Amino acid sequence: MTAQWRPVRQSRTHELVLESIERQVLAGELKAGDRLPPERELALELGVSRSALREALRVLETIGALVANVGRGPDAGARIVRNPDDALGRVLRLHLALGSYGVDDVLEARVVLERSSFEAASRSASEEDLAEAEALLAQMRDAGADVVTYNDLDTAFHVLIARSSGNPLVSTLTSAVRESVRALILEAEEAAEDWPATADRLHDEHVELLRLLRAGEGAAAADLVERHIRGFHGAVVGRRQPVTPGE
Amino acid sequence: MTAQWRPVRQSRTHELVLESIERQVLAGELKAGDRLPPERELALELGVSRSALREALRVLETIGALVANVGRGPDAGARIVRNPDDALGRVLRLHLALGSYGVDDVLEARVVLERSSFEAASRSASEEDLAEAEALLAQMRDAGADVVTYNDLDTAFHVLIARSSGNPLVSTLTSAVRESVRALILEAEEAAEDWPATADRLHDEHVELLRLLRAGEGAAAADLVERHIRGFHGAVVGRRQPVTPGE
Repeated sequence: MTAQWRPVRQSRTHELVLESIERQVLAGELKAGDRLPPERELALELGVSRSALREALRVLETIGALVANVGRGPDAGARIVRNPDDALGRVLRLHLALGSYGVDDVLEARVVLERSSFEAASRSASEEDLAEAEALLAQMRDAGADVVTYNDLDTAFHVLIARSSGNPLVSTLTSAVRESVRALILEAEEAAEDWPATADRLHDEHVELLRLLRAGEGAAAADLVERHIRGFHGAVVGRRQPVTPGE
Repeated sequence: MTAQWRPVRQSRTHELVLESIERQVLAGELKAGDRLPPERELALELGVSRSALREALRVLETIGALVANVGRGPDAGARIVRNPDDALGRVLRLHLALGSYGVDDVLEARVVLERSSFEAASRSASEEDLAEAEALLAQMRDAGADVVTYNDLDTAFHVLIARSSGNPLVSTLTSAVRESVRALILEAEEAAEDWPATADRLHDEHVELLRLLRAGEGAAAADLVERHIRGFHGAVVGRRQPVTPGE
């Protein structure tokens, strides 16, 4: 089906452009992989200014539904994509910082989502996923005192398990929630009184989590990941309660 | 603390403006309720064009972190807010339409989130919340064959329980996921072979859910809401699998 560019004429034009593109996506006229006409052309067809059009395109980029191509020729023009994870992570991170949620809310949301991810992963994770998870654990052990690297690997481990659960929406939400607290967790790790001991404990838990996934023991993995998340939050993040950083 | 407007100079300027504002939010220098300087002034301070600035502000509006004021005088200029629910609903709805997720993924995510919401609501819901939920049920019963009204009230009921769970993040995610399938659920309800019978069954389930919440029986409420969601999806939405509308 071909996209229908219907002219748009009103104030807050960018919002109407957005709605027009959204309607076409919802109607299946625009799909992932489709290329939009060049800005100049599209603005003409919609009857809007290029600046209003560009505002709408920026919004679509930010929510992971569009990538801009800077090239010319056949590759020019923006392309519809589906890349929601980073976009949602960003939205949640910003709202966490704005105080729309507290750290405890994030803790509970992580528990709910990761219990579900680990339970599903114990059924659905592929051998490749599990091997990759094992490699991440080895790298975490090697990271030693390098808390920044450790935190990146730890995030990657939890996101990988969420992805391997076979449900891309739960995975997106899990990643977004985990990503939204990456900086807080890093801060807490850097402030840990005995980081090597904490890292050792976290490592043992990760190893056991992976063993339970391999053994297909989903319920036990869900229980352990809940203790793992609560234990860390309770012992380290909970002590600091950095809900409104900067105050 | 006062916001520091540091000049920004590079290509893809809107992205740098966004990052600059985001950093200030993360640092606690910008908080909900704060007003941004007028566009002209802010563009000057950041050393960017007004169009680049406006692109960034549109993005912040769309993710529910800013409201634009069209007035002049002391009320002019945009204000930082925290209103993530609609923004996340929109992002998820668009990505559902793009096929980033299937209907089954949404079903599983709803089960996970609503189980948690109902369990928490059985402990935290206030008498006002429960009375409001009861009023919604009465309106749903009165809606009869008006499927559009029924669907709005049904959405409101589930979102209300999520809000009354005491965790705004889980509530946001629940609302967003529920909102993202509002049109699909409506379509399925309109296509139901025997809508009155379906509506009766759903009503009985809602009444029982509310009774369990009042009785503080969280585990039973969680189990019933899971059956409630799976039953409806399985019987109606599942039959149609409208994952890629328009194809």
